[in-house]
Amino acid sequence: MSTVTTAEPTIFERRESEARSYCRSFDTVFTKASGSTLTDKEGRDYIDFLSGCSSLNYGHNDPDMKAALIEHISNDGIAHGLDMYTETKQAFLETFERLVLKPRGMEHKVMMTGPTGTNAVEAALKLARKVTGRKNVISFTNGFHGMSLGALAATGNAGKRAGAGGVSLNDMTRMPYEGSLGDDVDTLAVIEAMLDNPSSGIDAPAAFLVELIQGEGGLNAASTEWVQGIARIAKKHGALLIVDDIQAGIGRSGTFFSFDEMGIEPDLIPLAKSLSGFGLPFAALLVRPDLDIWKPAEHNGTFRGNTHAFVTARVALEKFWADDAFKTEIAEKAKVLNAALQRIADKIPGAKLKGRGMMQGVDVGSGDLAEQICAECFDNGLVIETSGAHDEVVKVLAPLTTPMEQFQKGLTILENAAQKCAPMQIAAE
Amino acid sequence: MSTVTTAEPTIFERRESEARSYCRSFDTVFTKASGSTLTDKEGRDYIDFLSGCSSLNYGHNDPDMKAALIEHISNDGIAHGLDMYTETKQAFLETFERLVLKPRGMEHKVMMTGPTGTNAVEAALKLARKVTGRKNVISFTNGFHGMSLGALAATGNAGKRAGAGGVSLNDMTRMPYEGSLGDDVDTLAVIEAMLDNPSSGIDAPAAFLVELIQGEGGLNAASTEWVQGIARIAKKHGALLIVDDIQAGIGRSGTFFSFDEMGIEPDLIPLAKSLSGFGLPFAALLVRPDLDIWKPAEHNGTFRGNTHAFVTARVALEKFWADDAFKTEIAEKAKVLNAALQRIADKIPGAKLKGRGMMQGVDVGSGDLAEQICAECFDNGLVIETSGAHDEVVKVLAPLTTPMEQFQKGLTILENAAQKCAPMQIAAE
Amino acid sequence: MSTVTTAEPTIFERRESEARSYCRSFDTVFTKASGSTLTDKEGRDYIDFLSGCSSLNYGHNDPDMKAALIEHISNDGIAHGLDMYTETKQAFLETFERLVLKPRGMEHKVMMTGPTGTNAVEAALKLARKVTGRKNVISFTNGFHGMSLGALAATGNAGKRAGAGGVSLNDMTRMPYEGSLGDDVDTLAVIEAMLDNPSSGIDAPAAFLVELIQGEGGLNAASTEWVQGIARIAKKHGALLIVDDIQAGIGRSGTFFSFDEMGIEPDLIPLAKSLSGFGLPFAALLVRPDLDIWKPAEHNGTFRGNTHAFVTARVALEKFWADDAFKTEIAEKAKVLNAALQRIADKIPGAKLKGRGMMQGVDVGSGDLAEQICAECFDNGLVIETSGAHDEVVKVLAPLTTPMEQFQKGLTILENAAQKCAPMQIAAE
Amino acid sequence: MSTVTTAEPTIFERRESEARSYCRSFDTVFTKASGSTLTDKEGRDYIDFLSGCSSLNYGHNDPDMKAALIEHISNDGIAHGLDMYTETKQAFLETFERLVLKPRGMEHKVMMTGPTGTNAVEAALKLARKVTGRKNVISFTNGFHGMSLGALAATGNAGKRAGAGGVSLNDMTRMPYEGSLGDDVDTLAVIEAMLDNPSSGIDAPAAFLVELIQGEGGLNAASTEWVQGIARIAKKHGALLIVDDIQAGIGRSGTFFSFDEMGIEPDLIPLAKSLSGFGLPFAALLVRPDLDIWKPAEHNGTFRGNTHAFVTARVALEKFWADDAFKTEIAEKAKVLNAALQRIADKIPGAKLKGRGMMQGVDVGSGDLAEQICAECFDNGLVIETSGAHDEVVKVLAPLTTPMEQFQKGLTILENAAQKCAPMQIAAE
Repeated sequence: MSTVTTAEPTIFERRESEARSYCRSFDTVFTKASGSTLTDKEGRDYIDFLSGCSSLNYGHNDPDMKAALIEHISNDGIAHGLDMYTETKQAFLETFERLVLKPRGMEHKVMMTGPTGTNAVEAALKLARKVTGRKNVISFTNGFHGMSLGALAATGNAGKRAGAGGVSLNDMTRMPYEGSLGDDVDTLAVIEAMLDNPSSGIDAPAAFLVELIQGEGGLNAASTEWVQGIARIAKKHGALLIVDDIQAGIGRSGTFFSFDEMGIEPDLIPLAKSLSGFGLPFAALLVRPDLDIWKPAEHNGTFRGNTHAFVTARVALEKFWADDAFKTEIAEKAKVLNAALQRIADKIPGAKLKGRGMMQGVDVGSGDLAEQICAECFDNGLVIETSGAHDEVVKVLAPLTTPMEQFQKGLTILENAAQKCAPMQIAAE
Repeated sequence: MSTVTTAEPTIFERRESEARSYCRSFDTVFTKASGSTLTDKEGRDYIDFLSGCSSLNYGHNDPDMKAALIEHISNDGIAHGLDMYTETKQAFLETFERLVLKPRGMEHKVMMTGPTGTNAVEAALKLARKVTGRKNVISFTNGFHGMSLGALAATGNAGKRAGAGGVSLNDMTRMPYEGSLGDDVDTLAVIEAMLDNPSSGIDAPAAFLVELIQGEGGLNAASTEWVQGIARIAKKHGALLIVDDIQAGIGRSGTFFSFDEMGIEPDLIPLAKSLSGFGLPFAALLVRPDLDIWKPAEHNGTFRGNTHAFVTARVALEKFWADDAFKTEIAEKAKVLNAALQRIADKIPGAKLKGRGMMQGVDVGSGDLAEQICAECFDNGLVIETSGAHDEVVKVLAPLTTPMEQFQKGLTILENAAQKCAPMQIAAE
Repeated sequence: MSTVTTAEPTIFERRESEARSYCRSFDTVFTKASGSTLTDKEGRDYIDFLSGCSSLNYGHNDPDMKAALIEHISNDGIAHGLDMYTETKQAFLETFERLVLKPRGMEHKVMMTGPTGTNAVEAALKLARKVTGRKNVISFTNGFHGMSLGALAATGNAGKRAGAGGVSLNDMTRMPYEGSLGDDVDTLAVIEAMLDNPSSGIDAPAAFLVELIQGEGGLNAASTEWVQGIARIAKKHGALLIVDDIQAGIGRSGTFFSFDEMGIEPDLIPLAKSLSGFGLPFAALLVRPDLDIWKPAEHNGTFRGNTHAFVTARVALEKFWADDAFKTEIAEKAKVLNAALQRIADKIPGAKLKGRGMMQGVDVGSGDLAEQICAECFDNGLVIETSGAHDEVVKVLAPLTTPMEQFQKGLTILENAAQKCAPMQIAAE
Repeated sequence: MSTVTTAEPTIFERRESEARSYCRSFDTVFTKASGSTLTDKEGRDYIDFLSGCSSLNYGHNDPDMKAALIEHISNDGIAHGLDMYTETKQAFLETFERLVLKPRGMEHKVMMTGPTGTNAVEAALKLARKVTGRKNVISFTNGFHGMSLGALAATGNAGKRAGAGGVSLNDMTRMPYEGSLGDDVDTLAVIEAMLDNPSSGIDAPAAFLVELIQGEGGLNAASTEWVQGIARIAKKHGALLIVDDIQAGIGRSGTFFSFDEMGIEPDLIPLAKSLSGFGLPFAALLVRPDLDIWKPAEHNGTFRGNTHAFVTARVALEKFWADDAFKTEIAEKAKVLNAALQRIADKIPGAKLKGRGMMQGVDVGSGDLAEQICAECFDNGLVIETSGAHDEVVKVLAPLTTPMEQFQKGLTILENAAQKCAPMQIAAE
């Protein structure tokens, strides 16, 4: 059935490292993609409910971005310019200022980091420590912030941490995320009690590093009250607030930033994934201007400010964020999603809805069941993945631009898969 | 004179972080680039002797890569596929196997890491520690390996290390690079004596991490004898040999890998910069197959295996590395470069040639003088930078494909600049 | 008034480091001591409710220990024998086995460490990590375990931690002690939730390190239920249980070990302070025999097994622990103490009793008030100190052997001081 | 033959941890000791050439110290006074000021640390980091500074470091001790080159921590020129100089401090071992007064300032250091020792003399041979041990007060043992 596994080892088996992962769940060779559709070598189409883990919020090969990128390349536009000034970067920054920062009254500056989320997080951690003269950072249970050593220290997953090979992942204190201690424990009170106690052994923090919806951690969505509480505690203890909006940002939560309607202004905001709009590697750190105390090149890197990504990111902003239409569209789709997931949850004893906006899923109670559902979906032409500490959440990360009909079709495949797998699970108990 | 600094702050001054650096030396706004020529907003052309810090070894917008990339995008080829299997990746891997690995008898596997050099180094450090069960890594004076926390620990530069904000850069032992203790000290003997002594306090190393030509560290080029010595000592102590070929690799040294004619086979080889051929973000770690003990996703990341880069990287390999012609061309150009640099060195008391292949420069004895020379070059239409612990080396990193006439023209600008600045310097003494 | 502070700097001011501390509260020069009485240069007597911070549980210069020690020295008994076998060590070990270990069914072995509590804790941490192959240790808010770097990492107090000068105090996770999050939060549930979550970011622990009564941390006494819960969680997660009985042990809590009646058996038990019985430097680590995987000299030190202390420690065991009489006596005194402290608490709004056994105190709500009370006591001939994160607890650590009349006298001084200071405090509010 | 190993496990085997070490080499049960003679249970006498690893520089039970100590105890002199002022401490400090500090023009203050060498080193490291605001410390190959985590980081021996159980021994850079890279490498030049290079990756040091004669490391004795070089480099780089005089100090090197005739003044000087004079646990850190920025209790501990040790330490200073007679006596004995060791070295091909003063030994080329010699000595009534990275040095640490006749007798036993073992070794080759 698979086009990959044959008697003779494929080139991937021969020459690609065992670290590869998604290809194991989706064992076919893809050739092209458009909108929310992936096509494989056999000509089979798949609906994409993974979106490059939220890197393709506008779908594949958006025609406007595509046209602009082709034009740029055709005209010998710069592909790589280190961090030199280019017209392309200028246009991106002006558009980002006009459509994103100014409307929100944000004075933040944009730091182009290496084009990966982990690099933007590393930059944020460095800067927070440099600014405060403190080393300790508060991060949260189930958080995921990247795989390079600094960001990995803030990542909760035991398996991923094991990759460090025993090197100390230092200067990081873990606190409970909202809800992680059960419904009856006020995690804000726990955090505050620990930090207020001068003999708690927790060093004064340089920063709190938090995702408002935990993408890898099981789609835990923090309430506005909790987020405001964290902001307040951070301020009280002289710590910066870093909101990692790499996965939940750029529209995924329903608004451009995940914190847009929460009445807080983070000090540092790492962005990546859908920032380029086209799936191109691109990351940035938004920095409150008075904290921008970097010396030139103090955090540098070769691929800061991917110029091709400047082109597509600018088009994406102009196309989707010049007015509120897109936000309204996401909200409608999120409702549809919520209703579908509720129908699924109703079929599975103990299942719970997770997340918010277009970053929702259903906790089906076990990683095995979630995996079965996703495998069944793939067999029926839907690419979808799990999330959570035990991989127990079926996670829907459809492109925000998915046409409603296709979105419904994908949800139907998912519902059928849940229907099919759920009884098996029950029978097995 | 500058087009950027005006009374009113530019968008870059307003909104780009102070961490920006190259744009400060080359204070103009670039618009397009082709081959070895950069063009700015005013229509002024510059010869590029920086090549995106060796990320543009084949120059800007190579026509064949450009055509292939446009075709890929036009056809809705996948832009972002996480680490799923794609035809594009397949074609790249097959070409890399056929033209790079097989001819060298290398069994290495390719690990697609996040598309930055630092990420490939982080992966190498993790894997070396995981494989050996040891934590300590030997790195070298003047080494540069990246800015995320794991790689930064291996980076020598005090200013860059300060960016960590006081977090411990652990589990790293620094050894002297060849020549760094003066001509009369045998650094191999020093290293061996330290490691052979069970009471030296240096924990058994997981790996040696070394650049064969130190790009940021001042174009120190290790001799074959020294490199073989390091390989031997690593083996004797059960440590892996990691050759960081991010800057010196992909033809820069004169051969595809910087170690090609040295009779060694590194265990792990981080690659980035010119790997895509087109300046696109792309990085990989070559892994000796028996060391490829990663669990799926144990080191993951969103932008592993930039698909656009697979397209251009494949074309680059086919165009430049299918036979020995390119290598011969580089060798000829390296001779011309060497002769020109010797003429410059002859003008400056105490100046020394550094590097090898198309990664050469001249140590002019002071960072001030080197900076003056580079500034004078820029005024005359040549983009060129310094390197070294004291920024004392004028470093030539021209595209390997620069036409000879243009190459000569660039070298003449450089010679004239050196001529003009050198006496000023002497007068100033 | 003070005999020390004069116009000319005293020898202490001239030549003793500013690190000195208790001498600042008790600013006189002591000359001799017997039982529970300290005498100064002026011939003034003080009742000792500090007991060398629980190092003098049997009082000063117990006549039987004193006689035995003088006899040992007179006979040229060994003063220093490294860790060689001596008759004196043999006699101590046999007595310790007979009177302490055997009656409790404990198979533990005795590791002689350097003669300080911190050294015994360092040994425990090393051994727990060595045995489990894990690095992370769980310690608790308000815990105090010593000042050398390994033990300091487990110590909660911010001021003491600052002494490390910025060196990372790694591989330590802080959990809330019973009651530290307020009365309505079940700290066991919090701890269990954090550890059960594989994405909590808390590495699998080598050990739990806990005091059953926190001496420096404010006389917080854990309940049997909580201690059993910690033992259960430790076991469930494959972690060793280290009960630091340095301050609470050797009778202070009411029984020889602080855990004697709690139905648990710790894996590792650091002992020091009153272990010698006479105030001589002496420490040991009790080790469950199957965990005793040390290689010879793997944790060594010059003063392991202070031979003079073997003499007095043996006499102390024979004199006080051969039957239950001493335990009964402590229990009676503890009741008297509790009643007196209750009378004090009744005078101070919001005051709370803390601790158990002969390790009790009263939380008077502020460090200033506690300090005033202790100063007033000293003026009236009572040596007593504060404890707690804010120094808010007046702590009674009288010798367990204090004659009842003298004990009552001391308590009266304390009650009067509280009476005198309390209204001042209220007036000041 | 042994009195300990019997069919039934002894109390030591049953109840003393496997960490015990010296007792394994000297497998008998000692009962008393006087001067340089140890006596065991069977009444057998041994000459002591180990001196409690230099803790008994004045021999066992010196009659004057013994009398003073018995008198102190008999009079209910304080045994334990925390760090309160006592007449006994006052007398010690006055004597130390008068006989040690003033004659040398040293303004240093005395910090009473926990009574072990490692604790004094921990205090020195903390203070150096606190004073300089830097974390990195330079320590040396073959150095030994203790076993608690901070001091262990500075200890070179791989086996001892392994005891940390994988915890990072951070913020320590190892440099080569004089001679450790062979005779032809100038280690000062190596150290200076590494530190002068801002891209060496070695962070600016808080301190250099060095022994002038490496006791555990093989009796390597640094030359005056080298020590002055280290002092100069430390000063140049703004680092404190910490001379660990725990083993080499208090007369062992021939003068009170090992640096007395070297023209340097260390900033911080940890002392322990023979400081009490009687083998009692006692340690102190001498601190240049302007560096004494400790806050009260910032580095505290229960057994700081062992009061019994104040008594004996004072008597030792008065008896041995009031004039130059003792120094002259040591010098004469050192000559005798040197000559005897030379005779031994002449018998063993490749053997080398090590050390200086009364801290000399002979490197016999292998740990096996050195161990055989020591075992043979023990059989003939001499207690003596090995040292060095490979235990290859037979180390003589006789009491400085050993009567010449007894000293000669011990040396004869040693010579005979070397004679007997050496040919065996040669035959075995």
